[in-house]
Amino acid sequence: MAGGVKITLIGAGSAMFAAGIVRDLCVTEGLHGSHVTLMDVDEQRLNMTHRMATRLSDELDAGMSFSKTTDRVEALRGADFVINAAQVGGHDWTEYQRELAEKHGYYRGAKLHYFGQAAFFLDVARDIERTCPDAWLIQTANPVFEGCTLMTRATNVKVIGLCHGHYGYLEIAEVLGLDPKHVTAKMPGFNHWIWMTEFKYKGQDAYPLIKEWVRTKSFNYWDHDDRPFNANQMRAAAIHQYGLYGLMPIGDTPRLGGWWYHTDLETKLDWYGPTGGFDSEIGWGQYLERMSQRAEAVERAALDESKPISDTFEPTHSREQIVPIIDSIVNDNAATYQVNIPNKGPIIQGFPENLVVECEAVIDGSGVSGIEVPPLPPKLMAGAMIPRWREAEQMIEAIRLGDPDLLLLFLLEDHRTQNLDQAETLIREWLADPRNKSMADIFRD
Amino acid sequence: MAGGVKITLIGAGSAMFAAGIVRDLCVTEGLHGSHVTLMDVDEQRLNMTHRMATRLSDELDAGMSFSKTTDRVEALRGADFVINAAQVGGHDWTEYQRELAEKHGYYRGAKLHYFGQAAFFLDVARDIERTCPDAWLIQTANPVFEGCTLMTRATNVKVIGLCHGHYGYLEIAEVLGLDPKHVTAKMPGFNHWIWMTEFKYKGQDAYPLIKEWVRTKSFNYWDHDDRPFNANQMRAAAIHQYGLYGLMPIGDTPRLGGWWYHTDLETKLDWYGPTGGFDSEIGWGQYLERMSQRAEAVERAALDESKPISDTFEPTHSREQIVPIIDSIVNDNAATYQVNIPNKGPIIQGFPENLVVECEAVIDGSGVSGIEVPPLPPKLMAGAMIPRWREAEQMIEAIRLGDPDLLLLFLLEDHRTQNLDQAETLIREWLADPRNKSMADIFRD
Repeated sequence: MAGGVKITLIGAGSAMFAAGIVRDLCVTEGLHGSHVTLMDVDEQRLNMTHRMATRLSDELDAGMSFSKTTDRVEALRGADFVINAAQVGGHDWTEYQRELAEKHGYYRGAKLHYFGQAAFFLDVARDIERTCPDAWLIQTANPVFEGCTLMTRATNVKVIGLCHGHYGYLEIAEVLGLDPKHVTAKMPGFNHWIWMTEFKYKGQDAYPLIKEWVRTKSFNYWDHDDRPFNANQMRAAAIHQYGLYGLMPIGDTPRLGGWWYHTDLETKLDWYGPTGGFDSEIGWGQYLERMSQRAEAVERAALDESKPISDTFEPTHSREQIVPIIDSIVNDNAATYQVNIPNKGPIIQGFPENLVVECEAVIDGSGVSGIEVPPLPPKLMAGAMIPRWREAEQMIEAIRLGDPDLLLLFLLEDHRTQNLDQAETLIREWLADPRNKSMADIFRD
Repeated sequence: MAGGVKITLIGAGSAMFAAGIVRDLCVTEGLHGSHVTLMDVDEQRLNMTHRMATRLSDELDAGMSFSKTTDRVEALRGADFVINAAQVGGHDWTEYQRELAEKHGYYRGAKLHYFGQAAFFLDVARDIERTCPDAWLIQTANPVFEGCTLMTRATNVKVIGLCHGHYGYLEIAEVLGLDPKHVTAKMPGFNHWIWMTEFKYKGQDAYPLIKEWVRTKSFNYWDHDDRPFNANQMRAAAIHQYGLYGLMPIGDTPRLGGWWYHTDLETKLDWYGPTGGFDSEIGWGQYLERMSQRAEAVERAALDESKPISDTFEPTHSREQIVPIIDSIVNDNAATYQVNIPNKGPIIQGFPENLVVECEAVIDGSGVSGIEVPPLPPKLMAGAMIPRWREAEQMIEAIRLGDPDLLLLFLLEDHRTQNLDQAETLIREWLADPRNKSMADIFRD
């Protein structure tokens, strides 16, 4: 493939996301000359991304070419790699679904938008199966866990799910005052539900340093918390989860732990500091605001031809694993990554092979080889992993089977559901929305 | 073993239970001459059972001998079979634990008494391991699912869990007006969570007859419901579960289905008929009353030497599987039973081998051979089986690991829990009760 790799970006209307990929491609010599197809349903944003990407490649002399299209099948034709970062209907539709759920008693939503997302992923995977069956699909949009499992159960597409969450261990190191160069960690699990099974500083177990920090410094840290909404690694919720489950939750895991941290804003403020964390109305508002500001900055830079666009996107490697993984496959550069792949082997004992798990894997020209994880502690299995599997399985199978009963059961298992009628009414209103036709088609009784 | 089999009954203070076993032994020629050791902590009740059993065997010329003891280890010495039917602390302690939970917002209890029961089963199994390691343990007291799994994970004892629930399919046949002689059914799962995967009348699939009944007769049946509290097979809850999960729930399964049928008495009356079912304050009250009346009748009969005790316990085979299973093992009489045994094979795909499942098994002189179950429908797996596994796993591992966090998580997953404090307070009060020392010892932080 080398030299002539074709990469398709689904959801390329997010200029920030596209810019990150293009920049990483520009600093990866082995992928110079690649062709990138940008696909989005929003033509205006697509044009902007296209201009930005072209300028960046030209400035950095990466010899890449770009095309753009609003037609998904067209975009997939001949692709070697497909990156799916799309959010169906954008933030507005997600927020609308959250508000609908809130109206029915589900504070901060009931994850309904994940059903639409996962079903959309499956549509993309089916298009890949028909159009470019040998392509690798790199899935970055959420829900990675449920979406990747659904796609690998229902198609033969080679899927790799990616996330940034595992870098959370570096935040722990930072708070503990450890030099990150000497810190290593393992954190397997399910995406957004990963647990630090190993934490070493200069080769020695560093968990005692966390325990010591909890004992001597945590209260002062929590009392003087001015960290941003997404700094969750050492907040009270994460430390409480560490106690309950026996291992530190990493990345998005502390955000998503137990319903009892999330019953209302007051409770969230207790557990997640002054913003109430990523998923409070305050934290999430700040996140959306930040996303919007960044997108505007990218757009301004793309349109401003008075100065190089590489001033905005400095040509250094990001922490993003996407392009390095493509490089590993295309140029047989073996390296280890944190990925979401089917549990073949199994990689994590106790779960079926057709479930996607998050683990380390060696990736090279021959593909992806998951690294077997030592058995997870029984406390973590019973307390955290099996319950999370239960939840995922209901979402995955509801969509795969098109089964409205499983959709209902998913909501009935939600701790906020007080009676059958509450769940049934929410589902009825949700499926009646014209924007939700894809779900109505799937779940029509 | 034949002729000289030694059978130990733990919880023999229940004369009704003991009488059932002794009567079945009396009509099973291959087990005549057996010795039965009756064990209970209540000496007065034990004396009564002993007198009743001796009279019954003598009248029926079964040549059996009996001993009695309040010492468990003494009772186990030399046993070939141990039958554990004991309820720790009797109904009073169970009811007290229910009331405690109700005080904290858990209507009709939070299953706390099952923790004490399962831990007690493990104590018995450990005694067996030390005292009579080759004995078969037949577990009839609840929780069979969690208790048997716990015992088989933590000891090497050969455990068979038994229940009557699977006969529920006969109630379906009766309501449909089918001759039970021509009805066959399969209903694998977990104990008290079994599902009718096959239902045949004269060799033909009879599920359509259920559908037809639901369509044409169910409403009239529900409107004119005067069946007893424990007739749950065709009530609205069972039929609703059939819709939700795709298969008919059998035996105790419809009782224990979804929290949404059980939020309050009014809701229970809607779903379970005029008593609100087995587990409402009305139904359970009738159950306790019936148990107490039957026990009194047995006691009266045992004490009344003016007429044969075999008038009260007619010498016919009960439907109870206990004695036939002993006969199959002792006399190599191969037969098929519905049992609860470890999921070796696996018998039910998708669950670990160290989980006890309910299935059919052939039992003969060589032991118990579980019959592999065809893969359960994915809808049932995602909707019913995995969620129930989650719940069981937390109870089992909480006790096995002595882990108070898993006990807390078990309660946090309970749909009635509104916040951390509610669950923690209930646990604190429960563990502080002097009658609950065994639990306090296990869960001491």
